[in-house]
Amino acid sequence: MTDIHFNKEKGSQLKLFTPGPVHVPERVLKEMAKPNDTHRSKPYSEMHQMAAEGLQKLLYTNNECLIFTSSATGIMEACVRNLIKDDEKALFFSIGAFGDRWYEIGVRNGKISVKQGVEWGKAITPEVAQEALSKDKYSVVLIQTNETSTGVYNPIDELAPIIKDSGALMCVDATSSMAGVKLEVDKSDIDICLASVQKCFALPPGLAVCSVSDAAIEKAEQVKNRGLYFDLIALKKRHVAKHQTPTTPPIPQIRGLTAQLEYILNEEGLEKRFERHEKLGKRTRTWVQENNLEMFPEKGYESNTVSTIKNSLDLDIPKMVSMLLDKGYRIVNGYGQLVNKTFRIGHMGEIQLKDLEEMLNDLTDIINELK
Amino acid sequence: MTDIHFNKEKGSQLKLFTPGPVHVPERVLKEMAKPNDTHRSKPYSEMHQMAAEGLQKLLYTNNECLIFTSSATGIMEACVRNLIKDDEKALFFSIGAFGDRWYEIGVRNGKISVKQGVEWGKAITPEVAQEALSKDKYSVVLIQTNETSTGVYNPIDELAPIIKDSGALMCVDATSSMAGVKLEVDKSDIDICLASVQKCFALPPGLAVCSVSDAAIEKAEQVKNRGLYFDLIALKKRHVAKHQTPTTPPIPQIRGLTAQLEYILNEEGLEKRFERHEKLGKRTRTWVQENNLEMFPEKGYESNTVSTIKNSLDLDIPKMVSMLLDKGYRIVNGYGQLVNKTFRIGHMGEIQLKDLEEMLNDLTDIINELK
Repeated sequence: MTDIHFNKEKGSQLKLFTPGPVHVPERVLKEMAKPNDTHRSKPYSEMHQMAAEGLQKLLYTNNECLIFTSSATGIMEACVRNLIKDDEKALFFSIGAFGDRWYEIGVRNGKISVKQGVEWGKAITPEVAQEALSKDKYSVVLIQTNETSTGVYNPIDELAPIIKDSGALMCVDATSSMAGVKLEVDKSDIDICLASVQKCFALPPGLAVCSVSDAAIEKAEQVKNRGLYFDLIALKKRHVAKHQTPTTPPIPQIRGLTAQLEYILNEEGLEKRFERHEKLGKRTRTWVQENNLEMFPEKGYESNTVSTIKNSLDLDIPKMVSMLLDKGYRIVNGYGQLVNKTFRIGHMGEIQLKDLEEMLNDLTDIINELK
Repeated sequence: MTDIHFNKEKGSQLKLFTPGPVHVPERVLKEMAKPNDTHRSKPYSEMHQMAAEGLQKLLYTNNECLIFTSSATGIMEACVRNLIKDDEKALFFSIGAFGDRWYEIGVRNGKISVKQGVEWGKAITPEVAQEALSKDKYSVVLIQTNETSTGVYNPIDELAPIIKDSGALMCVDATSSMAGVKLEVDKSDIDICLASVQKCFALPPGLAVCSVSDAAIEKAEQVKNRGLYFDLIALKKRHVAKHQTPTTPPIPQIRGLTAQLEYILNEEGLEKRFERHEKLGKRTRTWVQENNLEMFPEKGYESNTVSTIKNSLDLDIPKMVSMLLDKGYRIVNGYGQLVNKTFRIGHMGEIQLKDLEEMLNDLTDIINELK
């Protein structure tokens, strides 16, 4: 092979501080390299069941947890196709690029889609939610917890009762926070809570997961034109009957997920993991202050898994990213309309405070050089 | 972790003679375990481009080759959603379970879908194709080359001119033959030729690929309600502009694909690879005769990548499969309505004639014991 990924023999030697795909620990890569039996075998079913039960613990839910051969965007499309009837209205709360994409998925699937946005950098507050829901009758509400572009964390625990009181089903995209930030699915009565694994799970991409409520399945039974690939009913049926998927799943990623869930639940521990991410978020925000920079999100709604930082020093962001690459770290520019106006530091997955300090030290030097 | 996949430390130690997922060589598993940069990085784009160019050589085509985060079924759904207008008719040729599934995808996506089947075990002959196409006007024709359930190989080179002469776009599911059997996309003017990688590519599952013609893209531009996740136009646009995917792809599988394509094209060589599969198919059929068994497919249409064998000795198939597992090999029972009436031996991927001989020797002993 030609010399791709920097190091032909070893692959990329970069340490990723990205908001996904993130740095994958070597123990996970080794686990994923083990040979597998087929997806219709007993060993596979056992592994699938372990993953699904681990996800239930992670999400504090008794709802079934399903495995999708897709990115998180695939499950976002599944929500739209399975839960919204053609004559119903759905409300998409959006606080950034990925919220906008979900609304776009609604439109492109021919569903009557209404978007309630706010200025980028702000969150959906209970007041915003209340007002939007009072305007019309919506059968499904779709919302991000952690918007990966703006680094804003929507106060989902406060929003959930308001959304559910309206009588709507609630779909939550927790892509860049699931397994990093506590989210209690049953307590908030979330109908579908989804994520992909290349973010806080610290796995390579290629797999997405969600919890699904009985109410969501009952609704899907009434919705026509759900297609086959993302049909929730077929997925749940096969999962419950055999701990399998209707189509062929990404077995190495599921093996990795099983190993990671065991690590998260039984080695690090859920509460400790959530605390670690709080510390990572706080430390990044302190560093931002120390360097006379500003956070992009409004105060009180900053994400603990990805920090979006205003380019208040008018730095040459591509140059800064490139100089940090030379030190062995990757952070990323702002997303979409926020390119060069912001930059982003991902601190999710298995990153420890010590790792973050080391990277931030190098980044401080670079910023001082660029100022 | 609990003791899943037979060997906790090493994973499954079985040698798979399955029609997918198949045995993955250790060099590929090692390649996949290398750490990766993100899917928006230059090293990723370089890798993506290498994979796409390798696929073009493999398929003898100048059409762009796209990468999907899905199983092959996902691209089957993409064909239906992108190419068939709501008022048009599509013809699904079916010779088995996976042909039936494609028709089902048409129906479940609300498209006017017509199925032309034949008795299982038989192929679509030019006569069958001609007659079916003369009955009505179809805008898209969808067909399997290699039906994984019946082990029948449709004579796609003979069928293609007939289908194309009708004026229809042609989608070919080559899932269990691509990279094992020669298929010249440009010569046959195939609009979409698709497969997943856990069959003849000898990769773990989690990735699907296809070639796509300009005519298919032009058609997609006229089709409403294509959704977002499987939108061919967005996929092709990002691929051409940046050698990337619109959503996050399964990077380890793409790394494995790149390595495998280099092996297939530059080490084994395409013609030699196709010859090897011919020999594997022939040897299996000779073995079937030697053991007084019969092939399920009609003569002349037997697949060279998966042999579906009639249970003409009235063997206890589950017991036979289980006894062979004890010897370290997995073959599989018949699929769907063919369970216990047939069994299947997959001889795809990196299986060599010597490997096949060894397995067949053990299987002969078991059959003699069971008779």
